[in-house]
Amino acid sequence: MTETQRPIAVVLLSGGMDSCVCAALAARDYEPAFLHMDYGQLTAARERRSFEAIADYYRVKRRLVATSALFRQIGGSALTDSALAVPEGGVDASIIPVTYVPFRNTHLLAAAVSWGEVLERETGKPVVVMIGAVAVDGSGYPDCRPEYFAAFQHLLEVGTRDGKARVETPLLGLHKADIVRLGLELKAPFPLSWSCYQSSEEACGRCDSCRLRRRAFRQAGTEDPIPYANGRVEESSCLSPND
Amino acid sequence: MTETQRPIAVVLLSGGMDSCVCAALAARDYEPAFLHMDYGQLTAARERRSFEAIADYYRVKRRLVATSALFRQIGGSALTDSALAVPEGGVDASIIPVTYVPFRNTHLLAAAVSWGEVLERETGKPVVVMIGAVAVDGSGYPDCRPEYFAAFQHLLEVGTRDGKARVETPLLGLHKADIVRLGLELKAPFPLSWSCYQSSEEACGRCDSCRLRRRAFRQAGTEDPIPYANGRVEESSCLSPND
Repeated sequence: MTETQRPIAVVLLSGGMDSCVCAALAARDYEPAFLHMDYGQLTAARERRSFEAIADYYRVKRRLVATSALFRQIGGSALTDSALAVPEGGVDASIIPVTYVPFRNTHLLAAAVSWGEVLERETGKPVVVMIGAVAVDGSGYPDCRPEYFAAFQHLLEVGTRDGKARVETPLLGLHKADIVRLGLELKAPFPLSWSCYQSSEEACGRCDSCRLRRRAFRQAGTEDPIPYANGRVEESSCLSPND
Repeated sequence: MTETQRPIAVVLLSGGMDSCVCAALAARDYEPAFLHMDYGQLTAARERRSFEAIADYYRVKRRLVATSALFRQIGGSALTDSALAVPEGGVDASIIPVTYVPFRNTHLLAAAVSWGEVLERETGKPVVVMIGAVAVDGSGYPDCRPEYFAAFQHLLEVGTRDGKARVETPLLGLHKADIVRLGLELKAPFPLSWSCYQSSEEACGRCDSCRLRRRAFRQAGTEDPIPYANGRVEESSCLSPND
């Protein structure tokens, strides 16, 4: 397929390990356009750095950083409200954790679809929207479930100009360890990625996001290349009974 | 019903005539919370003034102004890109006009649902989201159709913490003239509202939004109380063949 025929993939790239693998898939299969959202998360500046580094790595020119103050204004999530503690006790997939940012993925996907509509009209190329959401052993957020993405696909079909964009969730049915394996196979730049919910220098190793990430690398038989604080201490205790 | 039992209504209040009537309904039936979005539309400052004035009129304390630079960043709509002319030739409901802001209502509704989730947890009260969209003789935007709102209702049911919020579109099936009549009956503060797409001092009288609004007041047998430029000239020519 020549470059002119390839569809454009608007990739939601937070800079974490899952979206990093999503970016690698997009770079392999499509003409990538990278979209990042700074919604006031505690590690926004660190995530932004990862976003730009991954975009540089793939030499992606079409990149967009959207900002939203809304989540800071309304509060209610430990990711955007520093008065709420980020849990460090282990992942319990049976509850919706306090790190849930209310309906966040709808904001992210809406931004991607809006941009995609404009890109489609400018270039005449079909557009896919890619999001690296994980349902199998993710964090238990309601807007990460397969039925949510099916509902969003229907929403864009009835609510946009031509309704033709397609939402792709290539990681949704994968275990985190398989996502690591896929990323290694695709040479995804994991050292440039960042997943920690609360720290920007060394990953804390204790929040849900760090726990899920480190376990995934270990299960894939390799070491996570990013720096962790207290690496040895957490090595033996990073799984909760529910992990 | 006492104040403590009333559900909270998060009203999307642009400041235009339709959302002004929506606000009046919310003030009658619910405990209102008003949400406005500045998304870089040409008349953002004027709309913001109307929003605050209507909120003052109803003595609403819970008010939130969200801002989004996204639509200015991506372009593609005459409402946010001053390089694209706002059409003045008359409403043609058979096409999607250049004033369509790609997938905009999803951004607005997502903000309302996110805020609603937080309000529901803070107060324990049920939440409805109200939007004054008009489908019968509106502007022909795809994200104003009944099937779009049904799809959004389903999306929030599968994508939020408890999935219980309800999207209400009380004006969706009404003709614009009936919306004016309803507003007059409810004593909606029409003089405080603003609908013009391109002007902030006197309404232009020529854009789709002005044409639909003026025709609605005339059909309802009354005068629109806001000031128009060239009022007499437009009086005889404000309907296109499609109106």
